[in-house]
This record gives sequence, structure tokens and C-alpha cells, in this order.
Amino acid sequence: MAGSSYGKTFRITTWGESHGAALGVVVDGVPAGLQLDMEELQHFMDRRKPGQSRYTTARQEQDQIEILSGMFEGVTTGTPLSLMVRNQDQHSNDYSNLAEVFRPGHADYTFWEKYGVRDYRGGGRSSGRETIGRVAAGAIATQILRQLGVHLTTYARSIGPVTIRSFDEEEIARNAFALPDAFAAKEAEAFLEGCMKNLNSAGGVVECRISGMPAGIGETVFDKLDADLAKAVMSIGAVKGFEIGDGFAAAQSTGTDNNDAFEMREGKVCKMTNHSGGVLGGMSDGSDIVFRAAIKPTPSISQKQQTVTTSGENREIEIIGRHDPVIVPRAVVVVESMAAITLVDALFANMSARMDKIVDFYRK
Amino acid sequence: MAGSSYGKTFRITTWGESHGAALGVVVDGVPAGLQLDMEELQHFMDRRKPGQSRYTTARQEQDQIEILSGMFEGVTTGTPLSLMVRNQDQHSNDYSNLAEVFRPGHADYTFWEKYGVRDYRGGGRSSGRETIGRVAAGAIATQILRQLGVHLTTYARSIGPVTIRSFDEEEIARNAFALPDAFAAKEAEAFLEGCMKNLNSAGGVVECRISGMPAGIGETVFDKLDADLAKAVMSIGAVKGFEIGDGFAAAQSTGTDNNDAFEMREGKVCKMTNHSGGVLGGMSDGSDIVFRAAIKPTPSISQKQQTVTTSGENREIEIIGRHDPVIVPRAVVVVESMAAITLVDALFANMSARMDKIVDFYRK
Amino acid sequence: MAGSSYGKTFRITTWGESHGAALGVVVDGVPAGLQLDMEELQHFMDRRKPGQSRYTTARQEQDQIEILSGMFEGVTTGTPLSLMVRNQDQHSNDYSNLAEVFRPGHADYTFWEKYGVRDYRGGGRSSGRETIGRVAAGAIATQILRQLGVHLTTYARSIGPVTIRSFDEEEIARNAFALPDAFAAKEAEAFLEGCMKNLNSAGGVVECRISGMPAGIGETVFDKLDADLAKAVMSIGAVKGFEIGDGFAAAQSTGTDNNDAFEMREGKVCKMTNHSGGVLGGMSDGSDIVFRAAIKPTPSISQKQQTVTTSGENREIEIIGRHDPVIVPRAVVVVESMAAITLVDALFANMSARMDKIVDFYRK
Amino acid sequence: MAGSSYGKTFRITTWGESHGAALGVVVDGVPAGLQLDMEELQHFMDRRKPGQSRYTTARQEQDQIEILSGMFEGVTTGTPLSLMVRNQDQHSNDYSNLAEVFRPGHADYTFWEKYGVRDYRGGGRSSGRETIGRVAAGAIATQILRQLGVHLTTYARSIGPVTIRSFDEEEIARNAFALPDAFAAKEAEAFLEGCMKNLNSAGGVVECRISGMPAGIGETVFDKLDADLAKAVMSIGAVKGFEIGDGFAAAQSTGTDNNDAFEMREGKVCKMTNHSGGVLGGMSDGSDIVFRAAIKPTPSISQKQQTVTTSGENREIEIIGRHDPVIVPRAVVVVESMAAITLVDALFANMSARMDKIVDFYRK
Repeated sequence: MAGSSYGKTFRITTWGESHGAALGVVVDGVPAGLQLDMEELQHFMDRRKPGQSRYTTARQEQDQIEILSGMFEGVTTGTPLSLMVRNQDQHSNDYSNLAEVFRPGHADYTFWEKYGVRDYRGGGRSSGRETIGRVAAGAIATQILRQLGVHLTTYARSIGPVTIRSFDEEEIARNAFALPDAFAAKEAEAFLEGCMKNLNSAGGVVECRISGMPAGIGETVFDKLDADLAKAVMSIGAVKGFEIGDGFAAAQSTGTDNNDAFEMREGKVCKMTNHSGGVLGGMSDGSDIVFRAAIKPTPSISQKQQTVTTSGENREIEIIGRHDPVIVPRAVVVVESMAAITLVDALFANMSARMDKIVDFYRK
Repeated sequence: MAGSSYGKTFRITTWGESHGAALGVVVDGVPAGLQLDMEELQHFMDRRKPGQSRYTTARQEQDQIEILSGMFEGVTTGTPLSLMVRNQDQHSNDYSNLAEVFRPGHADYTFWEKYGVRDYRGGGRSSGRETIGRVAAGAIATQILRQLGVHLTTYARSIGPVTIRSFDEEEIARNAFALPDAFAAKEAEAFLEGCMKNLNSAGGVVECRISGMPAGIGETVFDKLDADLAKAVMSIGAVKGFEIGDGFAAAQSTGTDNNDAFEMREGKVCKMTNHSGGVLGGMSDGSDIVFRAAIKPTPSISQKQQTVTTSGENREIEIIGRHDPVIVPRAVVVVESMAAITLVDALFANMSARMDKIVDFYRK
Repeated sequence: MAGSSYGKTFRITTWGESHGAALGVVVDGVPAGLQLDMEELQHFMDRRKPGQSRYTTARQEQDQIEILSGMFEGVTTGTPLSLMVRNQDQHSNDYSNLAEVFRPGHADYTFWEKYGVRDYRGGGRSSGRETIGRVAAGAIATQILRQLGVHLTTYARSIGPVTIRSFDEEEIARNAFALPDAFAAKEAEAFLEGCMKNLNSAGGVVECRISGMPAGIGETVFDKLDADLAKAVMSIGAVKGFEIGDGFAAAQSTGTDNNDAFEMREGKVCKMTNHSGGVLGGMSDGSDIVFRAAIKPTPSISQKQQTVTTSGENREIEIIGRHDPVIVPRAVVVVESMAAITLVDALFANMSARMDKIVDFYRK
Repeated sequence: MAGSSYGKTFRITTWGESHGAALGVVVDGVPAGLQLDMEELQHFMDRRKPGQSRYTTARQEQDQIEILSGMFEGVTTGTPLSLMVRNQDQHSNDYSNLAEVFRPGHADYTFWEKYGVRDYRGGGRSSGRETIGRVAAGAIATQILRQLGVHLTTYARSIGPVTIRSFDEEEIARNAFALPDAFAAKEAEAFLEGCMKNLNSAGGVVECRISGMPAGIGETVFDKLDADLAKAVMSIGAVKGFEIGDGFAAAQSTGTDNNDAFEMREGKVCKMTNHSGGVLGGMSDGSDIVFRAAIKPTPSISQKQQTVTTSGENREIEIIGRHDPVIVPRAVVVVESMAAITLVDALFANMSARMDKIVDFYRK
């Protein structure tokens, strides 16, 4: 069954395998008249590109994005944008020894069970390279949001056991981990060196903060804004948990502590705290939207591991190849992209919420 | 924009407000030939019914379910099932004093911002009563799953700061909190008494364990089984977080500890551990699926709270009325229902995954 | 698979069988703040009600519509409207003799093949009564369209071999056939009397004319406005053909004759003719939208017919009961309803087509 | 709003403009394990290619299809197939004179009204080249159908006023019009020569005949098989009408003549006639499915035409360039492709219709 599309009014469809000819995305529902900044789009691609530090894989992927449709004279035309990256640095041979084993922590076994065939090269469709299309579409969504006054800031909140204790937005781009805390970055470095020495890997938590969302965006029952954010973020390969606002901590709190009181401030309704994380009853409440995603440790490790083969034999494997000891820094832009796509979708869907505004739109 | 439906091949559409004439659901995509056990369906409804202990609201809601279509001579016919509960114990007057204030922690303000009008009686559409339709549909999904060998066990894992330390499935139905640990239930009782004395409320964590899912169910990119479960569960009113397997703890683990090794056991591929929580690469991996949902404390508390009115004035309120000091025990069946619906949808969607099985289906 | 919903931004989900407890519809995506005229809604229901002349079935169905949700103090709230009609005049016994035969021209055999079970009473789900929900939703859509300046006029263009030669809008409500031509109505009467004498039935063509649609509504590829109208109208039980503008006649025309030239008229772009029927490239072109639906003769006839039983034996049947000798007059409002729903959906979807208008909507 | 996708379980998303870099399609929901015949796929592309006779445009488009994903070692893997054709023979200059005028019969004006910007080169997105993606996907659908015993035969039934009087399947590929009647082909030739001499164009009717569909496929209410076929076919640029079985002729028939009697034949339920066109109540009835599409005359003609400019001035234009005097022969494969896609989607959706078959599928 078709499952490679996300979104309703602003919809992306991704395609491509790790070691196929190319990977890409069709972005449908982009409004006409958007002057797309192609440099910024490529910058988004570069944020997820490997090889940026010794803590990400040394594979060289240029990931030069190409736009094949939907633009005319620098402006979107309302028709779908097709974006593509050609695969180049494909060491398919690295993987031939994996053709008949199921790597622990990967989707090898489940693909095999579902489909009976499998493109084993680099994880095939379940490779992190699948996110190329998400990031390209996220860059477009981000440019739409900026025109509406909505901004996203995304960063690593923790790497393995190391969590930030301060927040300096400019620091995010300065260290190899996208941590907004230089001191935590040093600690993370030390921790990662240990991991790498032990042929091991680490995970972490990505946090996203969204400012400028008008109140009342999101649907009230199933398509709640936080439910859609959860799906969007949980659909990223390595994500094992999602929480908004106080999240799991809220479960241990009480009503008095968790409720956000309202007050008038300069003629506007404001919340005095933000335990809700900017969403009440599935709709944005005017405060910053704040959510977190738990990223598991990279499953590709060079330590000896116990597994089985496609023909049902026990086997020990060591995964040789070029792998990220921690995927979190590169996942930051993927999380941001999925959030941006979700917000645009919700904003467009919201336009027909009120009869008076519909009449205004068509009759003034 | 339409947002009251969930599911693709097995799709539910809920409708109804807390104090309207009735609430209900249309369940579309129910296969023909299912002998529906109506008593069990009503038992599902009773599990979410209020008034079952002193820790849930004293409101009397009979919630007698009525089936209006889709059945003939005790069997489903393949056409949509319409199920409805008439509202009866409506004390609308309880709420008239709330017509002009936004209750903290509720959707009052966001509804107002989105729609400009609001059915303020008992939360209207954002009331917990909206889940009646979900539970009715969940009961049907559960009966379908049983025929496929899939079973769900759902319970409270924690109430406020109290977490289970042992697991006794039979205990779940014995205490007021759906805790599978009698000792923890005692502690929760003590904690709740304190909350109630202080006119305060509590939250908790619901855990769901699914056995019997065949491997390979779920789609590989956006419609991952865990992403869909996350959306389904996060779409329930009070849920602020979702995690699968080790969840947020995985973010602090390492690859060696987090990967689940495979081994052959009685001719079958098995995992030696289950850190993944039964899903790899978005597809079921043959192990039990285990996920958790964080439920926030009931926002309706009788303590004095600071808020504002619809006309922009600061105001103090005390929410009088019949409210649950903790919603977790009643949320258990709602979480189970949303999970069951998601699993049925994924199982049906999976049927066209392989050409050989499609040919078998149509040509044998 | 779920297939009882229609529409994307404005979506209806119908349920119910001819002789079940009730039939109804959930209308999701109705904007908040619409003052629904309930009398007019009931009037829509009455237009499809049987028993209005000797040329429609003598069954007495009151079809009193009940609204169960989505309204508060006479105004829509943005949440789904649930509308229901209880079944009353059910002569289930009329149908018991049909339990084991497949009526020619009906869905009895195909239901049996698809589902293996069948509610044979009055056609079950494939009864014309299924359209009750469509018409209730269509009445709401029509009231939305009126506020946007869009109006629909629907009528019988032909009854059997009798086609209109003149057009008098007021005549439509005056005769039993919804023909806008009193002279044709007389001819149709004579023709029908002959049919009834021979225990036979007739079909006809319904035409719908839509004025006031702004230009540019509809999507450019698959969700073309005319493609969606075709689906909407072809999904009505007895419809066997759909055409827009010159339709099948265009296939015999030439480019010179079929192209509509443009000219400026009072500062506006206008078409000098309307061979296109108001749609170019899938989008409304500012002219009246004009389409036609071919309705087949009522398959329930009392003449002896050859058929087979569920156990595979040849059998002759005579369908006794109360049937419409011609369904066209009652189908008029169903066609109009499906068109209105389609137009509302397209108008809402169009709101995010242009970046400048989105910015206006959110930032002014 | 996103509108470039078609299908639910088997879904295509097309992209690309006439004179952009490339055009293509993502086909999602292709089952794993299909050995795709690439030569046959290219042959489908060639059937819609221009330049095959003097009655189609002389533009040289090689339309070499490239598969970028979803295949591994000659077999589909269950992941989306991305197919692309690079644009080559682009004479953009041919169109620069059309930048500021709205061509009659084209989507120029409606695009302008909807989006405010327009890629005027060769019709941009509304060009017939958009169908490249449909045909590539249709070729895949056709290969799936063949394995299920379903075959489609599609041809021109009429060209302008010339209609076939005999049927010889092998003749379809022999003449320039895809007419299954050599004599009619001669007449069509004479008619077209006249059109071309007058700088005029012609339309026609395409007919499609589908054999081998099992009974009971299609949904019973909105997603009726004939309603979905209507949408699929009406979404093709030049189609103005759709009918199934007797279609518009049925509207003039009577119940006695239009009903198809059933009889047992070699132990199977059969229809003695096929006025229904193979669909009853929205589901396939076991007979051949037969439908027709009305194609309007090519709107691009070189005669002088009256129109207006984007700045609101009346203007006379002559459309110079390479255009098809009749589009019908090339539309045949597009109609067949859209039908094949629709059938595959319906067959996959049908797999969860019955509980007993679902249990068989998962438990045997």
C-alpha cells in the first residue's frame, strides 16, 4: 500500500534508495508566487550532509539538489516541485557481505518479512539517505513559514548522557553536535571519543522551538497539531520517542503545577507559563511550540554482534563501513524539516475554518 | 478542514459534543462476516465510563451504545457501522459560568481563536466524551485482531510519582487505577487522597503491550507503524508524550546496549532482547510491541486559578463541577482502542505488499 | 476498505441501509459561524422524498432530519455535523422473497460476490435511501455556496425519449418530472403512463447549471473540477454517463466550432460562447458550469424476469412492491447535492493556491 | 492544495511541465516481486509519442523512460518507483509570442486566474506531456493486471463524425487513428485531410474494453468502480464526457430493455446481455467492463481566433507551431493507463472486504 507521502494540503512524496540511481521528493501544494531561495535550500541539504566532522560518517556525498519542475523565472507556479539528488559515492561492495544477514537494530529483517526481496545495499529504502527528500521539502516549508512570521530553532538537547545546561543559539552552528551549550559540547566530545574507541555508538535528544505561530492552528480531534508533529517526527528512522511541553514530566506533575494561567499583556491573551508546550486541545495556543525527539544510538557498530541469516542460520557479524558514531547532529535538520512541513500543512488547512473569513477571501 | 477521521483502510469518523444530543462514530472498512460480540463492545464502553471509583468523576453516564447500521442477522455486512450514545446526565448549568472564561489547561482559548464561536458546555467537542466513539470503534478492532491472533494488554504504569515495580495482569481490573501491581495501587490511593484534599489533580503513564503481531506489518517511510501509533495516541486529549521500546532511555544508551541481537529459536527468527519495542524500520519485528503514553494531570481543578475572559479581562476562577482527580484509569481503554484501530489499519494495508500473495489471493 | 466518505476539505461520510434502524451522514469541515436554515435543509430532504406524484413510489417516508452535533445556539461551531433520519415505513416482508435471488439491474449479485453476506431488504446499502445523507450534506453545501454567490439550478433535461425544447425555471417545481418545459412535461406524462401500463420503467437525463463560480477553482491535474464532478455524480446509483459543456457532441465538432473565443466585457475577461461548459484545464473559467448525468431506467419492474438464485439455479421473478417508474425527478436533488459538495470542497482547497493571498490571510 | 496524486492503495504522483527540465511520476504501492518488463514499458511510452503519422504533431520527442528507484536486480522491491523523461526537443521560442495571450480552449486563462503566474511555454503543466507520467504508471499497472488475468483493449471508436461499424482488434495498430475498422480509418483519413486544409482540428471517442475482472471489485458508495473510472478518465486534459455500458443511450431505454437477465452457464452466474457495461452498484459484475470517453477537438488551431491579453486587451491570434490535428490516437494509451491504474487500486482495496479471507491470508 502506498505510504511514501506525508501531508494533506502541502504534501510530499519521497522516493529513492541509498545506493540506487538517485533520491528525491515531489512537493505538491506549494503556493504560486514564492520566490525560492535556492542557496538556502542547498544550505539545508548541507546541514544533513555527512562528513562534516569526525563524529559523522566520512562518506563523501555532495548531495547537490536539482529542481526539475514547478518553477518558472525563479518563482513557484503552483504546480508540484520535483527535487532530486543523484547518488555518486556508492561503495556497493561494502555491503555485499551483508546480503544474507539481518543487521541488529536495522530494518533488514522486517523488510525481508514484509516484501520477500530486499535491496541490501546501505539499507536500501530504510537508509538515512531517504531523508534527503524530507529536508529539501522542509527547506521550502521553512521559506513559506518565514513569510508568515513563523520561525524554527532546532538543536541537540542531549548527546548520550550529556545534557545542555545553558542555551546560546549561536553556539548551535559552532560545534559538531548542534548543541547550544559550548561546555556540553566539550563533554559530548569526550563521551563520543570513548564510544568510538569501543567501536560503539550514541544517541541523544533533539529539541525544536517554534515561535510566531498564530493561536488556533491545528484540528481538534485526530489531526491535532501535536499528534501530527508526533507522527511526522516519529516517522524519522531512529526516533523512539516524542514529547511536547513538559511531556513525560507532566505525568508526574499536578494540575496546579501543570496548568498555564492566562493573563492579559498589552491587550493580548498570554500564558504566564508554557508547560503545555504551545498546544492546547490540539491547537496552537500562541506560546512557543516546544517538542523533543529521542534518537536511538546508531545501530551500525563494528563490534561483533550475534544475528541470523536469510536462510535461518546463526551468524556473528562485524559491520565494517563508514558509519556515524552519533546521528543526532545530522538528524536536527530532518526533525526541523518534518516540523516545518507539518506547520505549513496545518496553516493551509486552517484557512477554511470560519465562514466569515471564507466570505472575506472570496467576496471582498 | 475535515479532521474528524482516522485510518485509511479501516477508518473511523467521530462526532458529538459533551452536552449535545448524542455522540458517535462511523466505522468504515469493517470486513463482512464478523460476528460482533455486543456484550464485549458494551464492556469496552463501561471501561471508560465515569463513576467507577471515588477517583473518577461522580457523573452518571450510562453510555449505552446503539448500533444503527452495518449489521444484518448478527453479522457485519461490509458496510459502515454507525454507533451512537445518547447524552443523558447533562448538567449544562454547571457550565454557564464558564461561558466567558478560558479555563487554564483546556482548549477553551484555542477553540475561541480558531472558530470565533464555542460550545462551552463541558468542553464541547474537546471533552473527554469525544473518546466514546474511539472506544466503540476500538472494541470492534479488538475483535478483528483476536481472530488474527493479536492481543493487547493495557494498564497504568504510573500514577503521579508512583510507578509499578511488579506485573500481575489480573491485578489490573482489581484496583481503581488499572495498575498491575497491588502495592503500587495502595501508594497511588494515598497519593490521590492527598491531591483531592488539596483540590488538586494527578497524571500518569499508560503502557500498552501487544502480542501476536506477525513481522513485517507497517509501511517503511511515513506510515511507519510506530509513527502511526504515536499519532493515534497523541491525538487523545491529555497525552503529552509517546515512546516505544526503550524510548527516551534509548537516547542515553549505546549501540551495543540498544541493539537487539537475533537468534534462531525452534526454526524461527527471534530477538534476544526487545529494546526496539517490537518495531524496526517502521515495521513490526515479531516481538511484543510495547509503547507508553504520558497523561497530564486533569486540568479541571477547584483551586483558584488566574485566567482571562473572552472580552479580554483578567479574572480568577474556581472550577466547580464533577471532575476526575486523575484521568489515567479511564484513559487506558482509549489508548488501547486507538492502538487496536491502528493495527487493523496496518494489517489491511499490508495485504497488497507482495505480488505473489496478491496472485494467490485472486487466482487460487 | 473504507469507501463511504467523499471530499477532502469538506468531507461527508454516509451510513445506513434501506431497512436498518436509521440512515445518516457526518459532515466534517463545515466552517464555524454558519447560521444553518433548518427549514431549507428539510425542504431539500423533501425534494428527494418518495410519494410526491403517481410517478414516484407510493412508499410513505417522512424522512424527518435530526441534527445531533456541530451546532450551538443555531450556529455551526466548526465541529462535525451528524445528521440522521430514522427509518419508519419498513415493509421488510416485501423483500423476504428476494433473499435468495439476484434482481437484474441491481447490486444484489455483486454484493454477494464481494461480501458473501447481504442485507437483501430493499437493496440494503445500495438502496436509493443511501442518498439521504448526500442530500442533507448537499443542503448545507448549498447554503455555504449562496454566501459566496454561487447558485445551482438542476432539472430533468429529458425523460425517456422526451427532451425539453424550451427553458422556464419556474416550471421545474410545477410538474412531476422537474422538467423546465411544461409541454415536455405533458409528453413525459403520456410516455410514463404507457410504461406503467406495461409494468415497465424509464430513465432520463438530469442537467445542472451553476452560476457565480469565480474563475480558477479546481486543481490542474487529477483533481480537476470536472473530474471531481464526474466522480461525484457517477457515484449516484443509477447514473451511467456524465458530460460537461458540449460533452459527447464535442467529439464530433471541430476546433473552430468548439473553441470559445475570449473578449473583454465591461473590463472583465468573458467567453463569447460556452462550449467548454465552464471548465478549462480542470478549473472554472468564469462562465456557467453546465453538466449532464444519464440516469438509467429503474431496474425494479414487475414484468417477469429471468435470473438465478444464490444457490445457482435459474429462476423467474416478478418484483412486487412499491417502486418508482422513473427515478429522475427524485434524482435531481441528489445530483445537485453532489455537485454542491464538490464545489465547496474545491473552493476551500483553492484558498492556499497563492502565496500573496496566504500572507494576506494571516498577516493583515 | 496538493492535487497531483491519484489512487489510494496504488498511488501515482506526476510532476513536470511541457518545457521544463523533465517530467515524471512516482508510483507508490507497487507490490514487491514484480518482474517489470522494461521493453513493454517503453512501448507504452511510444504509443503516446508524437510524430508517428502525419495526423499527429511532427515534434520529435524521444521520451526515453528512466527508472530511478524501486527496483533491485530486475524486480520491484515494494518501495516507490520513480520514473522520468528528460525534455529535449524544446522550441521555447515557438511560445514566447503566447506569453501574454490566453489561447481559446486552453487552460491559459484559468491558470492565470488561479495562480497569478504562468509557465506559458507549451501549456506548461496543462500540456499533454503531463500524461507521460500517467502512461509510465499505466504500463506498470497493466503488467500487474496481466498476472491477475485482467486485460484491456482500447481504441478509437470514432474520429470526428466517422464511427466504426466493425471490430478487428488487429487493425487497431495498423492505422494512424487506432480504429479497429480499416474502412472507417480510410474515411477518417479523408476527413482529417479536410480539417488540416482548413487549419482546423477534430475530436473523437475512445472506447476501452476490460476482460477478466473478477466480480465484486469496487466499493459500494462513493468509490464505485465506475465513479473512479469516470474521475480517472475525466482528469485527462481533453476529455469532456464519460459513459459506461449503454451510457447516455440507457437514459432513453426502458427497464425491460436495459436490465441484464442472469442465467447459469457451466456452473457460473452469467449475464445474458451487457447493457450495464460490466458494473452493477459500483462493483464489477463479471462481464466485460466497457466505457467510452469523449475527446474534444485539439484547441490549438492555426486559424485566426479572437482572444484577450493578460493586460485586458482584445487581440487576434494565430497559433503557429507543431500541433496534433487530432489527439485521439495518442489519447488511447492515456485512457487505457488511467483505467489500468484504477483497476489495480480497486483490486488491492478489495482484499480486506471479507473477514474469512483476511483470516486465511494471515493465519494459514
